[in-house]
Amino acid sequence: MNIIVDAMGGDNAPDEVVKGCIMAAESFGEKITLVGVESEINRLLKKEGFAGGNIEVRGATEVITGDDEPTSAIRQKKDSSLRVGLEMLHRDAGDVFVSAGNTGALIAGATLIVKRIRGVRRVALAPLMPTENGCFLLVDAGANTECSPAFLKQFAIMGSIYMEKIMNIDKPRVGLINIGSEEEKGTENIVEAGRLLKETPINYTGYVEGRGIPCGEVDVAVCDGFTGNVVLKFMEGMGIVVKDYFKKMFFRNALSKFSALLVRGSLKELAKTLDYTEYGGAPILGCMKPVIKAHGSSNAKAFYHAVRQAIEMVNKNIVGTIAENISQY
Amino acid sequence: MNIIVDAMGGDNAPDEVVKGCIMAAESFGEKITLVGVESEINRLLKKEGFAGGNIEVRGATEVITGDDEPTSAIRQKKDSSLRVGLEMLHRDAGDVFVSAGNTGALIAGATLIVKRIRGVRRVALAPLMPTENGCFLLVDAGANTECSPAFLKQFAIMGSIYMEKIMNIDKPRVGLINIGSEEEKGTENIVEAGRLLKETPINYTGYVEGRGIPCGEVDVAVCDGFTGNVVLKFMEGMGIVVKDYFKKMFFRNALSKFSALLVRGSLKELAKTLDYTEYGGAPILGCMKPVIKAHGSSNAKAFYHAVRQAIEMVNKNIVGTIAENISQY
Repeated sequence: MNIIVDAMGGDNAPDEVVKGCIMAAESFGEKITLVGVESEINRLLKKEGFAGGNIEVRGATEVITGDDEPTSAIRQKKDSSLRVGLEMLHRDAGDVFVSAGNTGALIAGATLIVKRIRGVRRVALAPLMPTENGCFLLVDAGANTECSPAFLKQFAIMGSIYMEKIMNIDKPRVGLINIGSEEEKGTENIVEAGRLLKETPINYTGYVEGRGIPCGEVDVAVCDGFTGNVVLKFMEGMGIVVKDYFKKMFFRNALSKFSALLVRGSLKELAKTLDYTEYGGAPILGCMKPVIKAHGSSNAKAFYHAVRQAIEMVNKNIVGTIAENISQY
Repeated sequence: MNIIVDAMGGDNAPDEVVKGCIMAAESFGEKITLVGVESEINRLLKKEGFAGGNIEVRGATEVITGDDEPTSAIRQKKDSSLRVGLEMLHRDAGDVFVSAGNTGALIAGATLIVKRIRGVRRVALAPLMPTENGCFLLVDAGANTECSPAFLKQFAIMGSIYMEKIMNIDKPRVGLINIGSEEEKGTENIVEAGRLLKETPINYTGYVEGRGIPCGEVDVAVCDGFTGNVVLKFMEGMGIVVKDYFKKMFFRNALSKFSALLVRGSLKELAKTLDYTEYGGAPILGCMKPVIKAHGSSNAKAFYHAVRQAIEMVNKNIVGTIAENISQY
């Protein structure tokens, strides 16, 4: 297997990307190809003293930044690490691509270069997010602002396959995000998507309201990319607020600092629960080869986990399973 | 002033409604009219030993429950406390109406019976919600599933007036909820609403992303009722999850219980921050007379606060100010 990694993507690139990939190369033994500015990557590999033979470097002179307009960046920056990596994936020079770079450019590139699985109408961004007792997959978290019922139906099928194979959940509970539980609630598109989902063999459990999502009512929460993006970022914001509050609460005085010591295990656990970046990258579901969006703020550990997730997506043949099932359902 | 209160609405009606109204009648001195099943209300007033002369009872034999279909309940249950109260408000037998009952029925009733201010296209549900350092008004939180740019513009104006007058904020910062900060982001409706808002004299600060909302980037967050309802309920769910986590964390063993004692002040404060019901009821903005939706789970204290808010809405002439400004802008 060859895992292609965009060495220049994300807030901490290339340093943390290279460190994380070294950890992953050493622990999983698979081949990793780092794409980006050669001199920098080689300098970092040397600095970290990587001695294994399973990391290769593929030069790419340009970088797509967070400020670039996605589609034009993909079209114009022909020698960017993001585009070069996606092109390698497309021509089978690798099995999976991981990037923490510009989300919009990665989604546009995945669609334009790697292309959609035959029958898939739209690719979807699907981050794994924390709940009270586990996690859920949010599909779509921002790839498609507006979605037809047919798109939503496909997101549900792809999400169900992902959670079944990657998270080992038998018959994942799939819900459509809506503003009520009664059948006639919500927009026409959602009502129609609900009707379509009842005819599929997946475990569609009906509408899920905002309240039920963090409480863990479903394993897959399906919505258009507008709603999903608001939910994703709102959760991120709430996480920041609660963590800030904790800091203030426990650093107020000597007694409160002592109090923090007594519950430090639980505090660390909560910080982890609130931090959805701990849950690895978000797959872009529906492409002909697996593509993973790592969080922009990923550190070495997060890249390590993203590579682990990439290996799993290949080994468990997520793309093949989606291709087999998407048109049948 | 006469504050009309639906004595039968909410999970804890009529007991907590009556208790809360007694507290409010005693502390504010205004007249309160409790609408609902007379015998029950009188029994509770007697039980609580209310001796003041400023609570009246108006009999209504029917009750609209949470399970009733909103519009048909309003049409068919002609002698329900919710409908009778709204009719009293409409014919000037009172100055403001408060109900913790069926949200959909209250919104439908407010539109059909109290009617919209001339020039207002749609009424909006506008709860006040907590942020890191204060609160923000969410408009619309569920009255209108789909919204035209003109609706969104009016929600922004009404929200700005409410926050300026009720929360004493000079030039409230008003943002449109969107999935990016660049002008071309989001749906066509949002882009057009942004264009319209730039032409108004309110302090429109542009798009606000999900992350910025709990962090307190805006005083008024404007969106369609679908998005708003998902955000409202998602926040509610996150609050429940974080509180549950706290309980588990601090009740784990003797040391953690001791730890909780050391920070109990901060813990109570956090619980309060996470609980948006503490922030009073949600006004239904755009009606010809003020209508307030108290949270369904309101206890006596929450009703007391809802009555206080009702008095303020009347005293600060929110309806009149909206009427004066909505067509000019």
